[in-house]
Amino acid sequence: MARNVVVRQISRADAADIDALATAGVATVHEAAGRTGLVGPEVAARQQGVAIAGSAVTVSSHPGDNLMIHAAVEVCRPGDILVVTTTSPSVHGMFGDLLATSLKAHGVRGIVIDAGVRDIATLRAMGFPVWSRAVHAQGTVKATPGSVNVPVVCAGQAVVPGDVIVADDDGVVCVPRAEAAAVRAAAEARAAKEEEKRAVFEAGALGLDLYNLRPLLADLGVEYVDRLDESGGQP
Amino acid sequence: MARNVVVRQISRADAADIDALATAGVATVHEAAGRTGLVGPEVAARQQGVAIAGSAVTVSSHPGDNLMIHAAVEVCRPGDILVVTTTSPSVHGMFGDLLATSLKAHGVRGIVIDAGVRDIATLRAMGFPVWSRAVHAQGTVKATPGSVNVPVVCAGQAVVPGDVIVADDDGVVCVPRAEAAAVRAAAEARAAKEEEKRAVFEAGALGLDLYNLRPLLADLGVEYVDRLDESGGQP
Amino acid sequence: MARNVVVRQISRADAADIDALATAGVATVHEAAGRTGLVGPEVAARQQGVAIAGSAVTVSSHPGDNLMIHAAVEVCRPGDILVVTTTSPSVHGMFGDLLATSLKAHGVRGIVIDAGVRDIATLRAMGFPVWSRAVHAQGTVKATPGSVNVPVVCAGQAVVPGDVIVADDDGVVCVPRAEAAAVRAAAEARAAKEEEKRAVFEAGALGLDLYNLRPLLADLGVEYVDRLDESGGQP
Amino acid sequence: MARNVVVRQISRADAADIDALATAGVATVHEAAGRTGLVGPEVAARQQGVAIAGSAVTVSSHPGDNLMIHAAVEVCRPGDILVVTTTSPSVHGMFGDLLATSLKAHGVRGIVIDAGVRDIATLRAMGFPVWSRAVHAQGTVKATPGSVNVPVVCAGQAVVPGDVIVADDDGVVCVPRAEAAAVRAAAEARAAKEEEKRAVFEAGALGLDLYNLRPLLADLGVEYVDRLDESGGQP
Amino acid sequence: MARNVVVRQISRADAADIDALATAGVATVHEAAGRTGLVGPEVAARQQGVAIAGSAVTVSSHPGDNLMIHAAVEVCRPGDILVVTTTSPSVHGMFGDLLATSLKAHGVRGIVIDAGVRDIATLRAMGFPVWSRAVHAQGTVKATPGSVNVPVVCAGQAVVPGDVIVADDDGVVCVPRAEAAAVRAAAEARAAKEEEKRAVFEAGALGLDLYNLRPLLADLGVEYVDRLDESGGQP
Amino acid sequence: MARNVVVRQISRADAADIDALATAGVATVHEAAGRTGLVGPEVAARQQGVAIAGSAVTVSSHPGDNLMIHAAVEVCRPGDILVVTTTSPSVHGMFGDLLATSLKAHGVRGIVIDAGVRDIATLRAMGFPVWSRAVHAQGTVKATPGSVNVPVVCAGQAVVPGDVIVADDDGVVCVPRAEAAAVRAAAEARAAKEEEKRAVFEAGALGLDLYNLRPLLADLGVEYVDRLDESGGQP
Repeated sequence: MARNVVVRQISRADAADIDALATAGVATVHEAAGRTGLVGPEVAARQQGVAIAGSAVTVSSHPGDNLMIHAAVEVCRPGDILVVTTTSPSVHGMFGDLLATSLKAHGVRGIVIDAGVRDIATLRAMGFPVWSRAVHAQGTVKATPGSVNVPVVCAGQAVVPGDVIVADDDGVVCVPRAEAAAVRAAAEARAAKEEEKRAVFEAGALGLDLYNLRPLLADLGVEYVDRLDESGGQP
Repeated sequence: MARNVVVRQISRADAADIDALATAGVATVHEAAGRTGLVGPEVAARQQGVAIAGSAVTVSSHPGDNLMIHAAVEVCRPGDILVVTTTSPSVHGMFGDLLATSLKAHGVRGIVIDAGVRDIATLRAMGFPVWSRAVHAQGTVKATPGSVNVPVVCAGQAVVPGDVIVADDDGVVCVPRAEAAAVRAAAEARAAKEEEKRAVFEAGALGLDLYNLRPLLADLGVEYVDRLDESGGQP
Repeated sequence: MARNVVVRQISRADAADIDALATAGVATVHEAAGRTGLVGPEVAARQQGVAIAGSAVTVSSHPGDNLMIHAAVEVCRPGDILVVTTTSPSVHGMFGDLLATSLKAHGVRGIVIDAGVRDIATLRAMGFPVWSRAVHAQGTVKATPGSVNVPVVCAGQAVVPGDVIVADDDGVVCVPRAEAAAVRAAAEARAAKEEEKRAVFEAGALGLDLYNLRPLLADLGVEYVDRLDESGGQP
Repeated sequence: MARNVVVRQISRADAADIDALATAGVATVHEAAGRTGLVGPEVAARQQGVAIAGSAVTVSSHPGDNLMIHAAVEVCRPGDILVVTTTSPSVHGMFGDLLATSLKAHGVRGIVIDAGVRDIATLRAMGFPVWSRAVHAQGTVKATPGSVNVPVVCAGQAVVPGDVIVADDDGVVCVPRAEAAAVRAAAEARAAKEEEKRAVFEAGALGLDLYNLRPLLADLGVEYVDRLDESGGQP
Repeated sequence: MARNVVVRQISRADAADIDALATAGVATVHEAAGRTGLVGPEVAARQQGVAIAGSAVTVSSHPGDNLMIHAAVEVCRPGDILVVTTTSPSVHGMFGDLLATSLKAHGVRGIVIDAGVRDIATLRAMGFPVWSRAVHAQGTVKATPGSVNVPVVCAGQAVVPGDVIVADDDGVVCVPRAEAAAVRAAAEARAAKEEEKRAVFEAGALGLDLYNLRPLLADLGVEYVDRLDESGGQP
Repeated sequence: MARNVVVRQISRADAADIDALATAGVATVHEAAGRTGLVGPEVAARQQGVAIAGSAVTVSSHPGDNLMIHAAVEVCRPGDILVVTTTSPSVHGMFGDLLATSLKAHGVRGIVIDAGVRDIATLRAMGFPVWSRAVHAQGTVKATPGSVNVPVVCAGQAVVPGDVIVADDDGVVCVPRAEAAAVRAAAEARAAKEEEKRAVFEAGALGLDLYNLRPLLADLGVEYVDRLDESGGQP
């Protein structure tokens, strides 16, 4: 049964793969990973135009208690992203500019937190990116045990320490560490294809034709009519 | 009973009326239309400072399935706005930059979608405006039938194909096609009056006097007192 | 039992204390006040980078009725902040640019409203800051009585007229008028300490050491392990 | 543009068809109507085991104002169901036991209200069924205009006066008046088929075989494997 | 500034007044108190058919920590109702059957808690009534300070220790202690009048006539029409 | 990367352990498992007084598509519980009485579904217990691939096929298969202790004394005072 632990060492994916996943972006990585890995949209970007990737150092905390975030800093390495969850839903302001300063000093690239953050103006000014459930200043305690680097669920997504976290304006996606290279390859292939499709769409082509959807529409019984009847009613 | 159809042709309001409604803006148009037509605030602007108007091409889709959005592109004309709804509540990421590229190539001015969108950074960069319930990257399928250009309900607001959609930072309002000219006239009259009122308010006048509200307050039994009693309690 | 009243005069805190609290910001003031006073995060900043403080003039309204906001303008003085609540939850668009123009003309610094606002683009352009539950254009009536300058609850926080309201990107905090000076002193002391801590964290120190948390972790039974077992399971 | 009206007379569906739809129930009627017509699940049954159907008399009210509900009573006839909506989202307690007594005296079968109700214990005791967004006692006013028997949207579903409302423990569905007979026939046919299917399922048959889904699974690329690998990971 | 305290003694309203308020019920008491005092509908009855009233003993806790509930038991007296709030929104299961057994042994009549409860089947079986935000079993800690018998805000309603809490199937209402007798009198008068009205409504009278609302409808510009035009559109 | 699979065989816990966990109940099992395993409270019991436990057969579906539920029936064995999740949040009515009949015929004990169900009156009548996010009748399709018996996340809780699911009026908890016996033992020990505590509490003892909390309160700085000052303010 569960004990509270701080796990000092985790395995991480290849740094070049991680950086390439940041370039690919959340939507492309999610598709490349077989449409898996998305953290729920309630954990949203708190700044615009930032895209990062890094290795997940996970935290499981009591709501409103940031003791385990402090414990996590010590096991972070440059290039990591902190992923913080709580044992029940919370918007308590568990993270602010001092902890961000500490994480930044240790090379952490950002935080994904299924709770609240505060000092958001300072966080934006210092360039420490945040994806959170809320912005809320409610002060925290340091009183209850939790764990660092155990498997967690963040806004509906299971995250194992060392997984690759990719985060941008679209939200957050988690790639299993062992699949980072394969997902990178698939993402780059997909991005290349999307560039081609974009050119085709810009030229006015229809998805109906590009994806050969007309037979499907017919199979599904979708009918084409010129006009709805005059009554304006549902056909 | 309902079948799934794609309706090719819809009637549209006068282009000058449509453009004038964009200039008037959502709040003024809503008032000019007798305080009707508002899409719920959960469908929110995903960029700042953009105001558009256009003719509604409507889509009714299964959640997480964008087949019918592809079917809709073909029936759009320059100046249209796509209005997408699903058969049950959803934040699935049904719309992204490729579909936006396609719509833009056909002259569509923007999208109002009671679901999620993705590639939001690219959408902002390419200047394709979006009003949506969520930003979420969850990938979609193309597998289930739906309809294009049938009456829909978008975040609580009934929309008939060809209605004028006005969207800005305040949200989205829908004007029945047949009322576009009248609403435009009322909106312009209202805007002119508001300019006058603004000047009056800037000079320090009170709404109490401008709208003659003091007798109403008295009729409603609202009393004026100098101070609450010292206990600070509810009077 | 409750009557509807407009209270003309309220006591206000010292102006220098109020301005100092704006400088300290919401998170610091909340901590300095013993972790009290926060308005719920659902009432959020509708602009970025603005920090204000002022004396609360309170309004209790029927949902969708802004009659009492008009009544409140008259009793506002330069430096005040309007705090608007409704008798049941509402996102009705009870406040827009004309009322903002009126408030601005009377020196009011901003509005905190547990309901909706509209004309948000204009409000941003004219520099009148807003913290609200929603942006929604739904038009209001002037038909039902309410009160001005009575104790209210705004998004879970009790506010007494004359309390100091501090609002920035982190949200809104309320400081009892009688405690403004003491909270200011505590906030300034805290801000100074935080500056010191920031430098320490920037140099790479750990919160574990700075706050002497290692003994606490041990007391709480948190164990340190080098690695999770290979199965990847919860320890 | 919109005016506020009370429409005295509406067309109603055939009484036998209406009663047969109550017997069929919400889920079957919704399917029989081509999977249309559902009011959102946030408007839920406030009692168990009651199933009714009737003709919609619609009300559009200001939040927290029940003036138009009173106006609606006069135009109700035995067998009707009141459908109440507000101009913006609200949980105000707009309906209680006195209004229920009045509606019951006029033969109204129940209420569907996208807002709050109160006196719920009495409503249950007197056998007046309610589907509502909330139970909340907040008192209402009678101060603002609205309309009776105009098209409304109730929790995402467009309702035209005279449509058939069917409500049971599953929620509420709306059938266009002109389709009542056809939907009744389809519902009865469907119910008969479901009885057959139920017997087949009770005997242990699989939907995979009954609906011939195995080829579809194969087409969609779903693979059958005996066991996940030992690591317990996502395949 | 705030300290954490347990206040041992509070003043209570007259016992006969309290019991009479329970008989009157939440809706009537709320009206009798001038339409004030309602706890938000998100704190709902977790059983049916129970109506109680008692004196508020208040608790302010850290989320997920029930230390202060234990501290509160000692200061409760027979006839009290515990009112529990947390410093940020929470559905943690802070209360279960053991604490209920303890409270019951001290004569406490029920609990109103803006958080979660567990052991709900046992609570129902033992007849200890609960109004809560959620049912959730998440285990709590006893680690952080809070206060007992200080003013709190419970689901939007300010509650002062010693206020009379009335709770039934409609939810919860709070009556200031000093107003208990007056509100009781007003509630009983109102209940008597409602009985009269009920008889009138049962006889088929209309609220329009009983409350003389026809002139108001005319003043508000509500028009009566026989039928909507054939197009079915909004008038 | 993810493929869609149906896994035919899973390992299950010992039947006697499973049944003992049902007897212990959700709250006790959650505690015995080290305060882990709870499915979020938004997935709630749709009947009262039912407590079950069984082995998890998991389903991952597209929203509004029940194809994979049909695929899952075949791999269920008597004593299993179906756990259904969707790829994005959904309240679509994916499960009704026919599927329940099929599951019941195969000995399945109940369903936990992070989506909607329908035919709820029939489900209650036939005694097939349901824990769901919503009751909603919206009809489903059988068109998109998914998986059976892969790890899923259900309302925030990771569930591996074969885990023991315990569900009662308090909600749902998941116990890792390998820990079933140990958790059972801990739960039974805990239940015995709780019986002792219950007797102690019934006799009037205080948790403050039973758990020796008075020194903790003192350490935390909680002060005891006889009365708040007359102003009624926060201490």
